[in-house]
Amino acid sequence: MVVIEADAADDPLMKQAQATFEPIPLTPPTIKGIASTPAMVNLGKALYFDPRLSQSHNISCNTCHQIGLGGVDMLPNSIGHKWQHGGRNAPTVLNAVVNVAQFWDGRAADLKAQAGGPIQNPIEMGITHEHAIQMLKGISGYSKLFEVAFAKDSDPITMANAANAIAAFEATLITPNAPFDKYLRGDQAALTPEQRNGLQLFMDKGCSSCHAGINVGGQMYAPFGVVEKPGADFLPPDDKGRFQVTHTVSDEYVFRVPPLRNITLTPPYFHTGKSWDLRQAVAVMGTSQLGQHLTDAEISNITSFLESLTGQQPNVTYPILPPSGVETPRPQP
Amino acid sequence: MVVIEADAADDPLMKQAQATFEPIPLTPPTIKGIASTPAMVNLGKALYFDPRLSQSHNISCNTCHQIGLGGVDMLPNSIGHKWQHGGRNAPTVLNAVVNVAQFWDGRAADLKAQAGGPIQNPIEMGITHEHAIQMLKGISGYSKLFEVAFAKDSDPITMANAANAIAAFEATLITPNAPFDKYLRGDQAALTPEQRNGLQLFMDKGCSSCHAGINVGGQMYAPFGVVEKPGADFLPPDDKGRFQVTHTVSDEYVFRVPPLRNITLTPPYFHTGKSWDLRQAVAVMGTSQLGQHLTDAEISNITSFLESLTGQQPNVTYPILPPSGVETPRPQP
Repeated sequence: MVVIEADAADDPLMKQAQATFEPIPLTPPTIKGIASTPAMVNLGKALYFDPRLSQSHNISCNTCHQIGLGGVDMLPNSIGHKWQHGGRNAPTVLNAVVNVAQFWDGRAADLKAQAGGPIQNPIEMGITHEHAIQMLKGISGYSKLFEVAFAKDSDPITMANAANAIAAFEATLITPNAPFDKYLRGDQAALTPEQRNGLQLFMDKGCSSCHAGINVGGQMYAPFGVVEKPGADFLPPDDKGRFQVTHTVSDEYVFRVPPLRNITLTPPYFHTGKSWDLRQAVAVMGTSQLGQHLTDAEISNITSFLESLTGQQPNVTYPILPPSGVETPRPQP
Repeated sequence: MVVIEADAADDPLMKQAQATFEPIPLTPPTIKGIASTPAMVNLGKALYFDPRLSQSHNISCNTCHQIGLGGVDMLPNSIGHKWQHGGRNAPTVLNAVVNVAQFWDGRAADLKAQAGGPIQNPIEMGITHEHAIQMLKGISGYSKLFEVAFAKDSDPITMANAANAIAAFEATLITPNAPFDKYLRGDQAALTPEQRNGLQLFMDKGCSSCHAGINVGGQMYAPFGVVEKPGADFLPPDDKGRFQVTHTVSDEYVFRVPPLRNITLTPPYFHTGKSWDLRQAVAVMGTSQLGQHLTDAEISNITSFLESLTGQQPNVTYPILPPSGVETPRPQP
């Protein structure tokens, strides 16, 4: 819950914002279904950076969700196994733990369910289950890490445990203390006048009907093009979004509302990654979702507000990975 | 210079080793031609991890020289632009600063000369000079970093300065305090009896004729197959090594003697990356370079000694990179 400080009472905008959004917590939140421990986080961090979890031994989680690039790869579509291109823009791993579900279509309920997806997806990391397990069992340094992290398991090296550990590490990747978080905690000076104007517009125009909560999005689903369908560049007809998960007609062109935390760090925008300009993305949202042609000044203010969503980026020490041995399966590039 | 402690006088093996090898320095050595500063190292670290220095914006220095994988990629040949394969096994970046020259054929005199090579090599990072400069100038966060690092330059964003900065960062990637370093500094207990036997064999058999100095190699050139040419798997006839640099017949199949520091962390071995087994690599060296069929026990002892060359791996905080903007050139995957 948000602690409302004394001066918030005099600031109707702050009160309205506090009723709509929540600050990023200062310490990582717990993940449903995972009893995260330091040993799990430690293992998960190694796995996150280990390219040997791909068939080629060349692609790691960090390849497409780079810790130093806002948790993304700044490509329209990620480049995967044998230089194949992913179907949608890679979402950020930062603060992903608080999203209602993972992927643009929400097909994974949580990080644990998500983590295994790209590893075995033929156009992403593309590793077979057999290769992955042989790889983890064939690197002696991993045996100890799995044993410590999953002490109760008689056979701890499983893909489910690997995904759990990766999720436990990913859950630590939160970016607290953005100017907007400080504002939500009662610091009126944390936002510039332009950002305050942008915040007011963001709520008054209706952006916050969908982009709300801790992640300023990521909490619900919405059709892209509520009012007016954008052009095929931004909404190609062959990607029907959540329909591909639910096979329900009302879910055609429905996507998980993207979280806007650190949005200035994560171009290009939209599920197609076709917009490199945050101002353009704001304008397209205005017409397609709200039926409003935002003025240049409104776009400037809203964009300025969005800049206040950039928090402290993760402080991650690069993990030293256990070396391959004679028993480790060979890469299959 | 090596400081010989009191008890070294009673240890002829230690005295012999101290005359042949040197410990990795405890602090990074200076690079000839580069006045390294913290600002240069800071910039170089960002560039080292930045995939936008490749044409596709998908490959960074760290892709093939991973900080957490002994400074290599653990692939026979690296995977580069559009999934092309490199011609030789990627050498480690760790302790590379003390090598006499860079690359397997020594075609770069130092790290500064090396750093620009893969960035613009069409089968590696494959970026054009124009794209690279536009990219660096098109990311506003880099302007400040270059200005601070190269304050005297009127136009600091150049590929030469980028390479200088990367080299300055790479020079910090040393791995001191291996058991062998402690031994060289006078600690008799730092090596196991088997490792001491291996060290004695390593010097007596003649391995240390080439693999000497700080990096236990990396200081000179030698033909692969002094006594007996290995099979085509390890020495394919179409890669004539240093001959391709000097065009001198006596340099056919000559390569820079690889440094053996952290060798257990950097399989696969040889310039082809065709051997995954350090024991096999030792045996092949015995026959090809020394004309000796080493016994199993000798191979075990030498391999055990090589394990003592693994030092403290780098403690690197993952750098947060400046974001792309509207002006940043687009990736060209």
